[in-house]
Amino acid sequence: MIRAGIIGATGYTGAELVRILTSHEKAEITSITSRQYKGEIFSDIYPSFRKTADIKIDEYNPEKIGDTCDVVFMALPHEVPMKLVPELLERGLRVIDLSADFRFSSRKSYEDYYCPHESPEILNNSVYGLPEVYKDQIKNSFLVGNPGCYPTCSLLGLIPLLKSGAADFNDIIIDAKSGVSGAGRGLSYGSHFCEVNENFKAYKVAQHRHRPEIEEKIEKVCGGKSRITFTPHLIPAVRGMLATIYLKPFSDMAPENLKKLFVDFYKDSQFIRILPENEMPSIKNVAGTNYCDINLTYDTNSQRIIVVSVIDNLMKGASGQAVQNMNIMFDLEENLGLSNTALPV
Amino acid sequence: MIRAGIIGATGYTGAELVRILTSHEKAEITSITSRQYKGEIFSDIYPSFRKTADIKIDEYNPEKIGDTCDVVFMALPHEVPMKLVPELLERGLRVIDLSADFRFSSRKSYEDYYCPHESPEILNNSVYGLPEVYKDQIKNSFLVGNPGCYPTCSLLGLIPLLKSGAADFNDIIIDAKSGVSGAGRGLSYGSHFCEVNENFKAYKVAQHRHRPEIEEKIEKVCGGKSRITFTPHLIPAVRGMLATIYLKPFSDMAPENLKKLFVDFYKDSQFIRILPENEMPSIKNVAGTNYCDINLTYDTNSQRIIVVSVIDNLMKGASGQAVQNMNIMFDLEENLGLSNTALPV
Amino acid sequence: MIRAGIIGATGYTGAELVRILTSHEKAEITSITSRQYKGEIFSDIYPSFRKTADIKIDEYNPEKIGDTCDVVFMALPHEVPMKLVPELLERGLRVIDLSADFRFSSRKSYEDYYCPHESPEILNNSVYGLPEVYKDQIKNSFLVGNPGCYPTCSLLGLIPLLKSGAADFNDIIIDAKSGVSGAGRGLSYGSHFCEVNENFKAYKVAQHRHRPEIEEKIEKVCGGKSRITFTPHLIPAVRGMLATIYLKPFSDMAPENLKKLFVDFYKDSQFIRILPENEMPSIKNVAGTNYCDINLTYDTNSQRIIVVSVIDNLMKGASGQAVQNMNIMFDLEENLGLSNTALPV
Amino acid sequence: MIRAGIIGATGYTGAELVRILTSHEKAEITSITSRQYKGEIFSDIYPSFRKTADIKIDEYNPEKIGDTCDVVFMALPHEVPMKLVPELLERGLRVIDLSADFRFSSRKSYEDYYCPHESPEILNNSVYGLPEVYKDQIKNSFLVGNPGCYPTCSLLGLIPLLKSGAADFNDIIIDAKSGVSGAGRGLSYGSHFCEVNENFKAYKVAQHRHRPEIEEKIEKVCGGKSRITFTPHLIPAVRGMLATIYLKPFSDMAPENLKKLFVDFYKDSQFIRILPENEMPSIKNVAGTNYCDINLTYDTNSQRIIVVSVIDNLMKGASGQAVQNMNIMFDLEENLGLSNTALPV
Repeated sequence: MIRAGIIGATGYTGAELVRILTSHEKAEITSITSRQYKGEIFSDIYPSFRKTADIKIDEYNPEKIGDTCDVVFMALPHEVPMKLVPELLERGLRVIDLSADFRFSSRKSYEDYYCPHESPEILNNSVYGLPEVYKDQIKNSFLVGNPGCYPTCSLLGLIPLLKSGAADFNDIIIDAKSGVSGAGRGLSYGSHFCEVNENFKAYKVAQHRHRPEIEEKIEKVCGGKSRITFTPHLIPAVRGMLATIYLKPFSDMAPENLKKLFVDFYKDSQFIRILPENEMPSIKNVAGTNYCDINLTYDTNSQRIIVVSVIDNLMKGASGQAVQNMNIMFDLEENLGLSNTALPV
Repeated sequence: MIRAGIIGATGYTGAELVRILTSHEKAEITSITSRQYKGEIFSDIYPSFRKTADIKIDEYNPEKIGDTCDVVFMALPHEVPMKLVPELLERGLRVIDLSADFRFSSRKSYEDYYCPHESPEILNNSVYGLPEVYKDQIKNSFLVGNPGCYPTCSLLGLIPLLKSGAADFNDIIIDAKSGVSGAGRGLSYGSHFCEVNENFKAYKVAQHRHRPEIEEKIEKVCGGKSRITFTPHLIPAVRGMLATIYLKPFSDMAPENLKKLFVDFYKDSQFIRILPENEMPSIKNVAGTNYCDINLTYDTNSQRIIVVSVIDNLMKGASGQAVQNMNIMFDLEENLGLSNTALPV
Repeated sequence: MIRAGIIGATGYTGAELVRILTSHEKAEITSITSRQYKGEIFSDIYPSFRKTADIKIDEYNPEKIGDTCDVVFMALPHEVPMKLVPELLERGLRVIDLSADFRFSSRKSYEDYYCPHESPEILNNSVYGLPEVYKDQIKNSFLVGNPGCYPTCSLLGLIPLLKSGAADFNDIIIDAKSGVSGAGRGLSYGSHFCEVNENFKAYKVAQHRHRPEIEEKIEKVCGGKSRITFTPHLIPAVRGMLATIYLKPFSDMAPENLKKLFVDFYKDSQFIRILPENEMPSIKNVAGTNYCDINLTYDTNSQRIIVVSVIDNLMKGASGQAVQNMNIMFDLEENLGLSNTALPV
Repeated sequence: MIRAGIIGATGYTGAELVRILTSHEKAEITSITSRQYKGEIFSDIYPSFRKTADIKIDEYNPEKIGDTCDVVFMALPHEVPMKLVPELLERGLRVIDLSADFRFSSRKSYEDYYCPHESPEILNNSVYGLPEVYKDQIKNSFLVGNPGCYPTCSLLGLIPLLKSGAADFNDIIIDAKSGVSGAGRGLSYGSHFCEVNENFKAYKVAQHRHRPEIEEKIEKVCGGKSRITFTPHLIPAVRGMLATIYLKPFSDMAPENLKKLFVDFYKDSQFIRILPENEMPSIKNVAGTNYCDINLTYDTNSQRIIVVSVIDNLMKGASGQAVQNMNIMFDLEENLGLSNTALPV
């Protein structure tokens, strides 16, 4: 059994990791930590876990983590993991970081949008944890920067097209929509039921930090500068994320060619489902799962490609993808712990 | 008192008309009709109207309508009003049609996307009922084609920019999102609670019939061909519509100039609110009201203008706008019956 | 025009008062205060009020209030109004307090469930602001203790029965359900979207402070000790409250007699709607209004009376009722500012 | 592997059965049927099942079912299973019926509330499928009448108390609340998003057919006539059910004794979780799982016991319990396929 530690287990992505790993056949949780709740029992914080995760919450202690874990999931706000990860790596642990700290190749990009980086020397050792694109590198890495939710949802809908060279990588609009859980467990008016329910709005228009992350990854694939337009919105639902992506192809595209491009690219990616022509992805169909559903349309009226891509922001957009990365790093079947179907309603 | 008839009063837009007009100071409802519920009492169908609209539902009878009404609201599915309107006009009534039948100037466009038009001869007499743009024409018209909800929300966010010539009218993307009431009272899986709640999806991608309506109105304003990209989505909320609109300006735009353009254009439009820079429109702030809230961003990264516009699809997007048109046609204050504020939560 | 002040205008009940009074024909807002937001503009806090209430928020100043107001609404947490009200009364103002501070006749009951009372000497001058029962006293009072939301919803469903002596006032169960706005604007996990949405739970079982308030009012009507069972629950909706009330009648009751009892009792109460036999009250039908809808069933199987009563917790359960009380105190028509119908959907 | 057939697989309980059984270690689905969708692929009806249940939907054919199945789940409206079950039993199959047809011991009760029974001779062979009470009988049965959702939720909160003789079985009030999925996939205004969302109401007050089912089972346990009061309500959520149960104990009860009664009774029931004193059950904590969470309060004020019990209406209230019954009938571990935890949010 792989011994897993979860640092920051009481946030939403941490709790999802606890849920996935408690029913994982080849991994077991050996330590969970939380500054806020140390000493308490996990199921007292999340009562849905009574009987399934009545686990004591530890204080963070790298030595203990080193002794009891093979892999560590960092489910913490950015800026914290960069301080803790070097020591964990030195102890020989594999680390999967769910924050932004190890997602960027470019230190400058990270620092432009986040804060000064305290462990820039290991940025190069980190692999971007998008298995559908970087599986081979993930397999051999000790440090994975788990992608942001918006980048995951967007890149999975973009990369086959961009790799093929069929569309202009410098004329991309991503209109993205996320459920409220993306804002986490912290209390704010932005997550207050009375303000959110029956509401819908855009936020951080042209200012969201997932935009440079997406651009860096596009540039890596395409080998040129990409300046995208990115607008996130808030859906009055707990889970789920949908990206509507607009691209300009270099020439007219037959719908079947468009689809074939994706089907071929993802032929070995079991979590990607390319939907039939008239079946639009819906967030409910992937809720609680690691799937990414994608549909492709060529709009002959305006000669644009419209890609619609959906994920569960806490699963494929965070904790599910993190476990998928763990499975790959430890040479397990990629879908262990992640094979469930969404509830039919 | 203006005597108003509502044809098709038991659909959602019809019921909204009943609600607005029962508290309108200078109008009274003299007849409501419904094929499905004729002979019944309106408040038995919509119990929220007990004590405020315990009105008998009539069968449609043009003679009776002619005798008892000054203005008639047609709240019917397209294809029906085109058959009824000529006779009503002949009886000297003013008609406000909420269907698509009299929105298009071009018979061909209508017939390409809807069905053969049976009263093409009066298409020319019809005025497009968007008061912020066509108030003068509405004032003198006998037949108003009340705009679709998506076109209202989109055009109000587009026209000041396009009129000024600042942006390319042939490179427009409208990513629109609507509450479920837009689908009406008819039963379908698309409005079934268990399928819609906690869900979000795109629908009719590149196929929605509001797209040619928007294009025709853009072309009228800009004097050239416009081929837009239009993608509607379904929000898990009852009311509200948000359009995120992407345009390419011909040159860089200072945010204050962008805003000034809109403030100036709408200086006499009391239902338009141009929001402060960092305050994003939210559908809840306009729910149950006739307001359209707009925010403007210039994205220096991708050099695109992003306009976000919100309305209540049943109000400014349908029945509220219809009453606004009536007020204008009868030379009343434009906001009679429409001056309420949204509930704070 | 009656000049009204709202103390604590930025909580949900305060904001509702602002909304109602800005469209009240015979009242105008002359001062609003908020400790947290003093000096700011109200519509910057609640953007739905742009153009309708761009009012400056004052600091609380009893002298200024005394000079500029005829009536003051206290929309503050309990324990605060008891400190402020005496001075306001001395200045000759009418006061309507939405907190619990002046609801109880019995100082002991208040102190058992809340805190020591600092103005017990004026408890006797206070009238319980349930107009359907105490209209005459309200008319002449200077201080109204506006009822709690649960007591309003419950008592309106109980009092006709208890007054008639038909049911046992010591064998009453009230199973009540409230929308989330009842918890106010304060941030807490109990109002966090991700925890509340798609959820339902009971809370403060057998411990809620509205229970003794209900009991005191029952006892006043019935002249004997009443020990009720009261269980509140949280509905995943913003607004609305429903009470399902179970009583034991002293003898079998024909449904028509049961209904007649209520119809007669409320014949002059325009906000009470006794529904037809098979039409169950639903919170949506009263949302945003001051109505209380009631349905009565006699269960022949268990020989119990089941009363179902609904209100909007922020309207008839708080601010709507407060304005109704103001109307009565100033001899205006009872429904001024409160005559709207709920949105049809 | 146990070979399972699902008759009526495209309703909500049928689809849940498909979901549970596709990931069940010791069962496999060998046939699914649906009149409405025969010949189609299951995942075309429920797209969340793409890749996990791309199964062809058969027409119902008892011979084929007999040849390919060991156990058959009937997920059909009542009145249909009674016609089909006898033949399936003759073919040696085990049958678990999710309708009401085989829940009642008393033919008269069934016929009073449903319709004439066409297979009354096998009513006696049927076992009531509530494993926490009837596990031994289920183990040996060939025909299980799977309990209704309300009866499951109610009886699990009642039986320990009634068996102990501590409370009056003839003075019971059950105030129950269900998510919308309980009304099934059939289209109706009662499940129309715009009518249900932000709404809450009681329905079928004193008339619901689950009431006599609950009474029969209480009487079986207590050996005397029981006439309960039962009021169902509709929660604006997809899944989940909560029953608030009021009982009169014969004497005062210390809370710890009350709790002990339940803990002891359910000591071998892994799906029952008796919660700590101040932790109220919430439907979200059991959503998608087979758990029933229960909390007990003794209200010293009114001397009543208040039991709050929650389940997922489609899981422990239908399909989850059906699979639990299958596990017991085939001598498997009781929680196979049912061991998951609810999503943390």
